[in-house]
Amino acid sequence: MDKEYYLAELLPFWKEINQSARNALTAASMPVYYKAGTLLHAGREDCNGLFLLVSGRVRVYSITAEGKEVTLFRLLDRDVCLFSASCIMRNINFDVYISAEMDTEAVRIPAGIYDRLFKEQVSIAGFTNELLSSRMSDVMDIMEQVLFLSFDKRLARFLLDESALEQSDTLTLTHEQIANHLGSAREVVSRMLKYFSGEGLVAVSRGKIRLLNVDGLMALSQ
Amino acid sequence: MDKEYYLAELLPFWKEINQSARNALTAASMPVYYKAGTLLHAGREDCNGLFLLVSGRVRVYSITAEGKEVTLFRLLDRDVCLFSASCIMRNINFDVYISAEMDTEAVRIPAGIYDRLFKEQVSIAGFTNELLSSRMSDVMDIMEQVLFLSFDKRLARFLLDESALEQSDTLTLTHEQIANHLGSAREVVSRMLKYFSGEGLVAVSRGKIRLLNVDGLMALSQ
Repeated sequence: MDKEYYLAELLPFWKEINQSARNALTAASMPVYYKAGTLLHAGREDCNGLFLLVSGRVRVYSITAEGKEVTLFRLLDRDVCLFSASCIMRNINFDVYISAEMDTEAVRIPAGIYDRLFKEQVSIAGFTNELLSSRMSDVMDIMEQVLFLSFDKRLARFLLDESALEQSDTLTLTHEQIANHLGSAREVVSRMLKYFSGEGLVAVSRGKIRLLNVDGLMALSQ
Repeated sequence: MDKEYYLAELLPFWKEINQSARNALTAASMPVYYKAGTLLHAGREDCNGLFLLVSGRVRVYSITAEGKEVTLFRLLDRDVCLFSASCIMRNINFDVYISAEMDTEAVRIPAGIYDRLFKEQVSIAGFTNELLSSRMSDVMDIMEQVLFLSFDKRLARFLLDESALEQSDTLTLTHEQIANHLGSAREVVSRMLKYFSGEGLVAVSRGKIRLLNVDGLMALSQ
């Protein structure tokens, strides 16, 4: 993998920093590979640095003391994952977990070098602000859904989003996995899927959900 | 009001920027006063700039299309309010509303000058990142409460927090106001307060709630 190509391609500030900063970033960065299911980052204690995603997909989620999960957002290829470097941001008081949902290839920029350059280069600090703002927008969106949408609407939206993400009408997902995405309980998901199934919206089989009526799901999700 | 005193006092980067930047900030900033109940900022369209809170209290909240509210956080004196300048951050895709909960005195830094300096001065960009991270931590905290705490626990926490904020056992709050803080419905709040009242935790009278058993509320809130 040509790491310098991806640094130049995925970091919008690349042309605005001087050659010595570019050299320092290139020297410190490294290609990394994660098998589907691997954990890239486990809470604040962990400080791997930024990941520039070249291919694959990661899921960024929160876990409560009781082990309940909720997905905050996903990152796809060409996205930059900042929260794996949350140690460099003093006021981040929450733990996020990041796992590879597919085999994932990335360039890792260690936290130390990013922290140093980010304090020196205004274009890097500006980019970091933009990343933070985007992720905060994602989290606000999830919060508004959680607060103000009934669970049937949230589940319908989730199934439609997954179908678009996977580019398939058939989703390979357990009820437990869906519950972990939505911050819900497996029983609640199973009950609602049973209702969706009775309405002819989906067909549920072991570990698979097939979308039968996309228009119906869309109407429900509004 | 000596606005320069508050700029120097509340902006941690003040000593790190040069005299010309300090002069520009001082010249552009202005003292502002808001009566309790006034709206300081209404969604993304609005771009007043940053507020440095000298005294008083503001509430930052979200409103859905249906008019439901939820409080994201409060800012007190010596806090800096960034979201009233969210127009300068490209990736903020949510609307927040900000209102004065008490008579509030602040220094307003217009968005234009902040935007310019923030793109030039790495210490200002760094401070902005810290503000964003803090507020994102607040929002994550609210989201985890909404997702993973039952409503009785959330209401108990809210009453205890309000009592600490007001330094009083008696809170002047309608059920509607509590519902708007918690992203809930008035009926849900009334029902739970009736239950709390039956358990001897609070005494409810017209527009007032008195905390009778703080230990009991604490035990419930865990």
